[in-house]
Parts: sequence; C-alpha cells; structure tokens
Amino acid sequence: MPVNAQRVIEDLKELRALTADANGAQRVAWTATWQKARDWFAEKLAELPVEHHLDAAGNRWVTLHGESPKALILGSHLDSVPNGGWLDGALGVMAALGVLRHIAEEYNGKPPVTIRLVDWADEEGARFGRSLFGSSAFAGTINVEDERKRIDRDGITLEAALRDCDIDVEKIGDAQREQENAAAYLELHIEQGPVLERLELPLGVVLGTKGVERHAITFHGQEAHSGSTPMQDRRDALAAAAKLALEIRTIAGRHEDAVCTMGSVKTFPGIVTAVVGRCETTLDQRDLDAEVLATMYREAQEASRRFAEEERCTVEWSRIWNIEPVPFHPELIALCEEAVLETSGTAHRLPSGPLHDAAEVARAGIPTVMLFTQSLQGISHNKIEDTKEEHLRLAVEALDRLATKTIAWIARERA
Amino acid sequence: MPVNAQRVIEDLKELRALTADANGAQRVAWTATWQKARDWFAEKLAELPVEHHLDAAGNRWVTLHGESPKALILGSHLDSVPNGGWLDGALGVMAALGVLRHIAEEYNGKPPVTIRLVDWADEEGARFGRSLFGSSAFAGTINVEDERKRIDRDGITLEAALRDCDIDVEKIGDAQREQENAAAYLELHIEQGPVLERLELPLGVVLGTKGVERHAITFHGQEAHSGSTPMQDRRDALAAAAKLALEIRTIAGRHEDAVCTMGSVKTFPGIVTAVVGRCETTLDQRDLDAEVLATMYREAQEASRRFAEEERCTVEWSRIWNIEPVPFHPELIALCEEAVLETSGTAHRLPSGPLHDAAEVARAGIPTVMLFTQSLQGISHNKIEDTKEEHLRLAVEALDRLATKTIAWIARERA
Repeated sequence: MPVNAQRVIEDLKELRALTADANGAQRVAWTATWQKARDWFAEKLAELPVEHHLDAAGNRWVTLHGESPKALILGSHLDSVPNGGWLDGALGVMAALGVLRHIAEEYNGKPPVTIRLVDWADEEGARFGRSLFGSSAFAGTINVEDERKRIDRDGITLEAALRDCDIDVEKIGDAQREQENAAAYLELHIEQGPVLERLELPLGVVLGTKGVERHAITFHGQEAHSGSTPMQDRRDALAAAAKLALEIRTIAGRHEDAVCTMGSVKTFPGIVTAVVGRCETTLDQRDLDAEVLATMYREAQEASRRFAEEERCTVEWSRIWNIEPVPFHPELIALCEEAVLETSGTAHRLPSGPLHDAAEVARAGIPTVMLFTQSLQGISHNKIEDTKEEHLRLAVEALDRLATKTIAWIARERA
Repeated sequence: MPVNAQRVIEDLKELRALTADANGAQRVAWTATWQKARDWFAEKLAELPVEHHLDAAGNRWVTLHGESPKALILGSHLDSVPNGGWLDGALGVMAALGVLRHIAEEYNGKPPVTIRLVDWADEEGARFGRSLFGSSAFAGTINVEDERKRIDRDGITLEAALRDCDIDVEKIGDAQREQENAAAYLELHIEQGPVLERLELPLGVVLGTKGVERHAITFHGQEAHSGSTPMQDRRDALAAAAKLALEIRTIAGRHEDAVCTMGSVKTFPGIVTAVVGRCETTLDQRDLDAEVLATMYREAQEASRRFAEEERCTVEWSRIWNIEPVPFHPELIALCEEAVLETSGTAHRLPSGPLHDAAEVARAGIPTVMLFTQSLQGISHNKIEDTKEEHLRLAVEALDRLATKTIAWIARERA
C-alpha cells in the first residue's frame, strides 16, 4: 500500500479552513490560532501507536518506537507569518504525518528504527522577530538572555508569551535533550522561489542552506540645493549608493546560485529640491559556499569604498546579522536524489536561500537533508502561495521514499 | 557721498536680533514674527521723503517720486523659511533701502525717475507651500481658486491667514495695478550656491532663472524573496532606478550649467530580505535654455523606459510642477556687468537655479536683472547661512551703481 498523499492534501485543506481568514493563514506562533492548529494536530495523532509531548522550548515530539532507539526525525513547523500561505511549514508537518502513518502501517507499529515527528515552535519569528526559535533551542544555539526581553508590537515580552504557553524561558535549553539518539533529519518544504517552476520540475534536492551576510551601509555626502549646486560641486550620496546597487549584481554574477540584494534605500533629506546628503541602504548576500560568501562580502566593501571616493562621500558598514552556510549531509543528499529521481524522473540539486529549521538540526551535527517542491510564481508568505496538487502528491511520495531509504541507511550505518 | 553699505549691515543685524532665535530666522510669512519684521521696516521709512502702502496681496510698496513717473523698482522679501538665515531675502530689501536713502540724499528727494522699493509678501511659501505669492499676484500669474484652500500644518487655510493680515483673497489680483509705470526691476540676493565661492568672486551677474521640470517617476518590478530568487529571475525596480540616478548626470553633463537631481528614492517593501518591487523616485531638472530643458526631459524619459525594459520593469511619470526659464533683460544684464566690474574688478555671469520674485516680475514684461553675492559654503535656508561682510559691502555698492546706471537708462530709453 503506498503512502496516502491525497489524505495529506485533505489534512492541509482542513487546517486551512480552521486557521486562515480572507487574508491568509494566521497561525502566528504563541497566539490562540497557532494553539488551535496544534491542538487539531494532536487530535490527528490519536489513531496512531505513538506517544507525544512538548519539549522545554514548545516543540512537539511524536514518537513511534522502533526495534532500535536510533531515530529518524521528520519535521517542519505549523506556525505561519500573519496573512501567510497554506503550505509554508504546514506541508512539511502534514507530509511527515502521512509518512508516519504509512510506516506505522507497513511495519505493524514497530519499524526497524524509531521514527519521530517534530513540529518546531516558532520557525517564522513573526511576532517577536526571532526565527528558528524551537529548532535553535534544540540545537543549543540560542542565548536565553538575548531572547527573553524581545517584545511584540503590543509590548508583551517573549518571556510572558512563553509563560502563557506553559514554557519557562529559563529552561528552553533543555530541548537539547531531544537530540538523544537522533540519527537523521528530513524536511519537506515548498521552495519559496522560482527555480523549480522555471525548470518545470515538481521536486528538488536541497544541498544546504546558504550563509548570509546582512549589513546596513550608509553613504554620507553633502545635502545641497538642487537648483543652485552645479553637478561638479556635488557630493551626492545617492550616486554612490546607485553604483553599489548595480555593482552587487556583478559581484553575485561571478558565482552560480549566489545572490546579493539591496532591499532598502532611504534618502535624506529625501526631498525633490535637495541633492541627497545621506543615503542608507541594506545589503543581503547569500551563498552555500563560505568562501564565496566571504569573497562577495569583501568585494562589496571594496566597491562601496571606491564609489564613495569617486563621489567624494564616505561610507560606513554595520553588520545586521550573519550566519554561516549549512551544507546538508552528502549521503542523505544522495538518498534524496534517488528518491526524487524515482518519483519524478529528474533530480535537480539546488541550495536553499531561505533558512529552515533543518539548518539548525544540521548545525547540531545530525545528518540532515531537505526536499523542495515547486512554488507557483515562487511566492510565499502570502495568501496566494500555492503548489499544484499533483506536485504536492509527488512531494509526499518522494518524502516517503526518502524515509524508507533513510531507515535502511540508519539501520546499516548507525546501528 | 557714497552709499552707506555699513548701515545696511547694521540694519540686517538689528533685524536678526529682533526676529531670530537660537535656531535661526523665524520670519515665516503670515506669522506674528514676520509682522514684527515688517513693522520694524516701516519705522525705518519715517526719516525718508517717501510714501508707502500694502497692496492687495500684502506686498509693501515704498515710493520716492521723481521727475518722471517711470519707476525703477528695487526689491526682495523679508519673509524667511523656519530656522532660516539672516540674509536670504532680507539682504535684498535692506540693500534696496540703503540705495533708496542714497538716491534721496543725492537728488535732494527728487530723482529724475521715480524710485520704488518692494518687500514682496511670502516669497518662501514656507507655511502654505506656495512660493512667490506676492510677486505672482503682482504679475497676474496666480489663480485664486488654486490657492485659497491651501492649509498649513494646523489646518488653517491660506484664506483665513490672509484675512488676519487684512487681505481679501478674492482681491489679490488687484496687486497688478502696481505694474503701472514700472520701467525696470533690480534685485540683490545671496547666491545660495557654491559657484562664486569656488571662483573666489564676491559678486555675480544673473542671466535669468532656470526653467524647472519636476517629476515623480515610479518603477514597478516584482517583490521577491532575497534568498530564494536567483539573480536572473528578478525584476528589480531599484536596479532600474539606480541606472536612472546615474544617467541623469550624463544627461545634465552635456550642457553647461544644466542640473538634474534625484532627491528622493523610496523602496517597497523596503526590507532587507526582499527584492524591491516598487521604487518611487523624484527628478528635478533645470536649465536657463528652454530647448535644453526640453531635451533633458525627453532624454530622461527615454532612458527611464530603456532601463525599465532592461530590468523587465515598467515605469510611470507624473509631473509634480514645471516652470519655463525666465531670461533677464539683455541691456540690464549689460548694465549689471558694468556695475559689478567697476565694484569688484571681475564680472562673472551665471544663471540662478533657485527661483526668485524677479522671475515673476520679468514674466510681467518688466525689464529685470539680479545681482548675486557669494554664499559661504553655498548654504542657505539654515541658521549657518552667511556671507563675508566685505562681500556684503561690495554687493550694496554694486546695487547702488547698478541703480544709478538704470535710472539713466530709464531716463534715456523709457521716458
């Protein structure tokens, strides 16, 4: 009996009906709608021979005990951004449930290795600005002191919001205990980008999550009257920024799959009759190769200084955030490639630009791989986020095949 | 006896002490501080053989009757922007008063032609956003219906503010009566730009005020995730805008004295993790030659469409405002050049980027010229606005010489 992919789609539609409004999904972590989604999910487990609990960081763990305590983990997150889509995160959790059902059935409740499903708490960070909350606690990469005083737009602290969900912020590090016996981690997710659609492929094998260098870059020139200041007397901060906005495309273009984005430009005084005296920009650079990322960062810095000098401006950089690239496990990538090839006939490898809980799991040293399915128009974090149902079915089937191969791999390699 | 330039400087300092605070001049039109400045000015007239009145638009006219009713007008404005400088406008009015004193003395109260001094009402438009108010009413280029409903930041209408100053908005067009017998108009003003300082010249002969084309230009691309969207799949509205920000410099550079400025750039959604989906910019283009201005406007439009196409974006233009170039009178320019040459040894000709009341007077068909004096660092509309006192003295002397030459010119050409 194959995995019941259609039931996964029906589950997703049920969840959507329960937790979306006219503007999209509203399963923001640490809110009532998210709790409703999680309670609904817990009810779905009743029919299965599993036990489940919430860990110290609010992640839900579902365990189907196998012959070996070594565990294959499948997971993703039920939380969404405000006005989000029906698939981002939820697809991974509900597909994992579909695979868990299939395995429980196939092995009469006792597979060769233990199978665990995890619904990570607060992947999106939509309410408090801290993404990958639960998986970071699991990986031990979160610093409690950095997080407890975060506040939402109503002034409520993360600490208080956690308390309302019966979580003690002091103890979230205890979620690391769930690492015990973890042998592999698999996550299915929508691509959230246009690559698979452009290639007309339903599925992709994810090589890892790109590292990110994220900086605020400010050019300082001289505010001046647009009418009375000749071109040659200007120190135009916007001109320096415009050169950088174009140069980052050349910098990214030297490397396959690398991206550089200037997402925000602010001009001061920012009026029609004044040469721009100060221009504040942001730069986001990503690549799967740490060396490429470092090169792009250095090249952008050098270019910004050159452009500042050309325009008789100065430039200052301030790091907003960065994270190293997280490559996935080569043997699991190979298994994922087999599963995708068998399911859809073509296995395309691609890195993930967005971060995922899988990156935190991999950082904890647990062999990890992800599987992508096509996103229509590459759009997510929006109510129009969608994927063809035939692709969703193929994705569930590929995850199921990958799980079977990984069970064998754990039994063989990790027993 | 030469003109008493030092007394003009003392008057300016007295006015500053009366109407400035720690943040600069506060003589915003239609406010109590402006009224105080105007009352102070009226008191200065008591010692002179003149009559004076406010016209229907609030401009103050001071008349020294001469042998001929043909009138030489000297003027500028006492109003300032909030937190403004001590010289912008005030220099022209107080220098005109100094010249009027000198002429009254020289000719024993009866010069060959009539001499008039005008303090224009609301040149800056600081409170209601309508600059050149009084001089436009004089020139007949103002539309009452466009203006009466303008409101200030407190919601007070221009109509109500005028009523408080005993002005009926319906009748401001009656100010055109003051055109009768006007034979020439002279205005001294600080440059408000860096050209004379760079050339190390105290004075400049103004050729006219540049025409202005002012537009809002919006590029529409596609918002996309900075991590998951490959460079080649992007429709980056900022990239198209950045190309235009650089290209307008090439467009301006083809013409001497032409300027093009992108003063404001706004990015949407404007966050570090998103490719810019929409980029709103402003463009301000100026030149003294109407044909050059039209060419630059056309070239910027063509360039914007080319860049939009290259980036798979669209572009839309919306005119914010425009005005044609106003060249000054060739014979008065020649007289001004003589006066500047005799005063300082070098006569540099330059166009004015900023608009001035003189442009409205010239549009009314009255022969007009302006004289500039150096601005330190090219800065105005700021409390640090300043000019060396020796340059102020030279400026008053040059205006006085120019007035004498213009009196003779009127007597000769216009009698």
